Amino acid sequence: MIVRSCLHTNLAVFLAACVCSALVRAQPITSEQEETQRIGDLVVANHILANQNILDAWGHVSIRSAKNPKHFYLSRSLAPALVKAEDIMEYDEDSKPVDARGRALYVERFIHGEVYRARPDVQAVVHSHSPAVIPFSMTGVPLRMAFLLGAFLGSGAPVFEIRGAAGNASNMQVTDQARGVALARRLGSAEIVLMRGHGDTVVGPTIKVAVARAVYAEVNARIQMDAIRLGRPIYFTDGEAATLKKMEDEERSVIRPWELWKAQAARAMLQ
Amino acid sequence: MIVRSCLHTNLAVFLAACVCSALVRAQPITSEQEETQRIGDLVVANHILANQNILDAWGHVSIRSAKNPKHFYLSRSLAPALVKAEDIMEYDEDSKPVDARGRALYVERFIHGEVYRARPDVQAVVHSHSPAVIPFSMTGVPLRMAFLLGAFLGSGAPVFEIRGAAGNASNMQVTDQARGVALARRLGSAEIVLMRGHGDTVVGPTIKVAVARAVYAEVNARIQMDAIRLGRPIYFTDGEAATLKKMEDEERSVIRPWELWKAQAARAMLQ
Amino acid sequence: MIVRSCLHTNLAVFLAACVCSALVRAQPITSEQEETQRIGDLVVANHILANQNILDAWGHVSIRSAKNPKHFYLSRSLAPALVKAEDIMEYDEDSKPVDARGRALYVERFIHGEVYRARPDVQAVVHSHSPAVIPFSMTGVPLRMAFLLGAFLGSGAPVFEIRGAAGNASNMQVTDQARGVALARRLGSAEIVLMRGHGDTVVGPTIKVAVARAVYAEVNARIQMDAIRLGRPIYFTDGEAATLKKMEDEERSVIRPWELWKAQAARAMLQ
Amino acid sequence: MIVRSCLHTNLAVFLAACVCSALVRAQPITSEQEETQRIGDLVVANHILANQNILDAWGHVSIRSAKNPKHFYLSRSLAPALVKAEDIMEYDEDSKPVDARGRALYVERFIHGEVYRARPDVQAVVHSHSPAVIPFSMTGVPLRMAFLLGAFLGSGAPVFEIRGAAGNASNMQVTDQARGVALARRLGSAEIVLMRGHGDTVVGPTIKVAVARAVYAEVNARIQMDAIRLGRPIYFTDGEAATLKKMEDEERSVIRPWELWKAQAARAMLQ
Repeated sequence: MIVRSCLHTNLAVFLAACVCSALVRAQPITSEQEETQRIGDLVVANHILANQNILDAWGHVSIRSAKNPKHFYLSRSLAPALVKAEDIMEYDEDSKPVDARGRALYVERFIHGEVYRARPDVQAVVHSHSPAVIPFSMTGVPLRMAFLLGAFLGSGAPVFEIRGAAGNASNMQVTDQARGVALARRLGSAEIVLMRGHGDTVVGPTIKVAVARAVYAEVNARIQMDAIRLGRPIYFTDGEAATLKKMEDEERSVIRPWELWKAQAARAMLQ
Repeated sequence: MIVRSCLHTNLAVFLAACVCSALVRAQPITSEQEETQRIGDLVVANHILANQNILDAWGHVSIRSAKNPKHFYLSRSLAPALVKAEDIMEYDEDSKPVDARGRALYVERFIHGEVYRARPDVQAVVHSHSPAVIPFSMTGVPLRMAFLLGAFLGSGAPVFEIRGAAGNASNMQVTDQARGVALARRLGSAEIVLMRGHGDTVVGPTIKVAVARAVYAEVNARIQMDAIRLGRPIYFTDGEAATLKKMEDEERSVIRPWELWKAQAARAMLQ
Repeated sequence: MIVRSCLHTNLAVFLAACVCSALVRAQPITSEQEETQRIGDLVVANHILANQNILDAWGHVSIRSAKNPKHFYLSRSLAPALVKAEDIMEYDEDSKPVDARGRALYVERFIHGEVYRARPDVQAVVHSHSPAVIPFSMTGVPLRMAFLLGAFLGSGAPVFEIRGAAGNASNMQVTDQARGVALARRLGSAEIVLMRGHGDTVVGPTIKVAVARAVYAEVNARIQMDAIRLGRPIYFTDGEAATLKKMEDEERSVIRPWELWKAQAARAMLQ
Repeated sequence: MIVRSCLHTNLAVFLAACVCSALVRAQPITSEQEETQRIGDLVVANHILANQNILDAWGHVSIRSAKNPKHFYLSRSLAPALVKAEDIMEYDEDSKPVDARGRALYVERFIHGEVYRARPDVQAVVHSHSPAVIPFSMTGVPLRMAFLLGAFLGSGAPVFEIRGAAGNASNMQVTDQARGVALARRLGSAEIVLMRGHGDTVVGPTIKVAVARAVYAEVNARIQMDAIRLGRPIYFTDGEAATLKKMEDEERSVIRPWELWKAQAARAMLQ
């Protein structure tokens, strides 16, 4: 697939252009425009997550296709900070590229395909090696909501132990459909699943929500570790958690950070 | 309200201009000039607090009006790093915008309105999600003066438990006057109030003092956590704390950091 | 030795040029081209390790010569962030410079020479003062694989106690061949050896693998410390560790971070 | 005093010029040139310490005069990151400015004057609020040599308790000669003295050594805290500490970091 309207090699100009077009657009959005918008947001999401130090060389972010909701978009194998619109590839429901043209693929693309299959409500998926989250994946201490912006973590995030699906001597990675299915099962109806000794996968009803969750999972983990070292943390009531979760699900709750992080990512690229 | 003399879209130029005008100004300041100066300082405060990593996408800073001391200035709903002079709005004593013109408002503006009502000595208010402060809001361990620049913390900062004002299933936020009144009551005559699982609110007799307190609350929290992990901290005597608090209240004690942080914020914007 | 094809004073241009030439090159590589490529990679490795905060003013990285595998390349005594192609010197198997021309030498060059002698499989060596690694060198707590990318650490990295080779009142540094031999013996067949109260030395089958190991040793150490403070870490099975180690040995596993880090280092130099 | 040869408003150009002149200079240095060189180094030291996050808005660095060794140079009251050659002032042995011209003075200038009086071997003094050092000033846990570059810390740095000199309700600061004398006495023959709940003061036989000590005190403190949290640290033997201290005293041991940090500070100013 070729993205004509947003094909720029200078990403900063690209981002600025997207911002401007978003501001002046008033007509109804066609399906093709929606698809282009999704790919533009996916490029921005790659740069935000890199600039926020959630994704380094590894990890990846995807978005579901609007035209064909069984399909999704994901970059070719590349560090997220380097992703441009022309690097985005379309994948089918079995995590196979529609038109590979010899490009290298992320080996863990099955995370995305199987989560989209299992969770029709999910529109975007982020897989990362978020460093403050990893200790919670390997100590039995549950990562849980420790501040206002961590409501998606609930009272304890599920942890995926890959040994059940991949045996005792695996490469720990979700490199085929069977492992993807097992990961999606462990995720269940949660918004994040930790992966033992590896990282985590977060999902969202929009890409902006998924990106914010990936960022705040790391912030929450740091605060929670500090609180545990300091004393006995007072966590949220079930009612508070439910109320905050409901707000947190809505895209309007993350417009402000998205706009900030996008501006910061564009500035980082200009340097 | 329109700020004529300082209306620039390029904020770095704006800041530089303010610095220069401050240096050459010798005539007595009129009320209108004072108001313009306050709004200029408020824009600078937004950028300093963002560049010092105290405010990210969330949190906000306000200043009391000099012309109408029941009113205050606060940005429209926007990440502080993106605030320009034209984003600043005037609010009345009930935290209602004087001239909204359809702009989105910070939902927690009631923090500002009710603190200004309860504390005539306060000229500026900062609400933040300062990450090292949050663990002290939720563990029963009091945040207190742990180094020379934390005198405003005294021997233990009050913590606001919103359940009293908002019940057991609230969104934790100060989204109406009743909650603002309760927060201001818990603040009492202190200079900071922690908000459980959420962040904190600091006040000051000038905006420069309030900004410095917001920065040093985070620095102090980090030092205090490190000291607690290392051994049994030796805190300040009441006499030392009182002497340092008296110095710390005065604007001249924060001119040096304000000028540095302003220069750093301007440089960050130029990049 | 003079490096003609890559002699630029503007390092950013140099790096960009190397990237471009790598992309367009299709002919078979001659021995001379291979040697030039190795020196180019060595300059890039210096800048990557500085920009990733693994090397500061101290520490150094070397590469084995392809033309004369008993020899190796290493910068003259200089902070790695400042190294240019013309600073690279050739050393013989006794860590003596082939053509010193009065230039100052790293006093710990014997680390490199003796590791190359003892380990024919090693093509590159990094010696650093990696700050999160040092606590593991001096507490008896073994640094070990704590996440996916730390497979080269195995179930506990060896620690070099220099007192055996240098006595009880040494300068702690590997400043002669005897100490280099002792260090290489402690390294054995491992990929990293910690040096008590000092830092560590990592090796690799290619310079890209060695650089990635130096970076991930620091990341792993930070994660391991956080996990130990949080609870009882669940480490990898022997089978998982072996599988991951096999992948980690191959250069293709580090292309993605190398390309990212190179781009980031080039950008840092342009600023 | 007016510094003619190095008077530039663009500091980056200033620093570059100093580097170049240092490289081409071959004639014997006159007393006047030496004094100019010292002031140039002092400006550089201010920017290095700011850029290395040792000095923020507070703290200061001074150098002894070569022409009149009872006198010393120190900036007017200003954040170190903003110091230019024309801000440097000359002080006499009683910490009084030779030619104040109405400029604001650092209130803690007596630290410098009294240390120079008590320690003829000292050529430069740095006073900072180094954040990782402060916990050691207030917990009874001695800051000590925990890695190779911390030899100047010895087996435990002295801590200055100002209550003896200033009573139980002081402002904690060294604001007069009597307090300066008490601080210098506690420093004794050490290279650093911690100041309870406040920060530290480091000294050196040259300004380059003093700057390196100020930086490595912070690095050492962070490593020592991490090691204490991890297990029981193995410290250096007395013989190792003595050998390393002897090396560390010599300026040639810090040329490499000084050149790196100067280049980094110049780059930061260009941004």
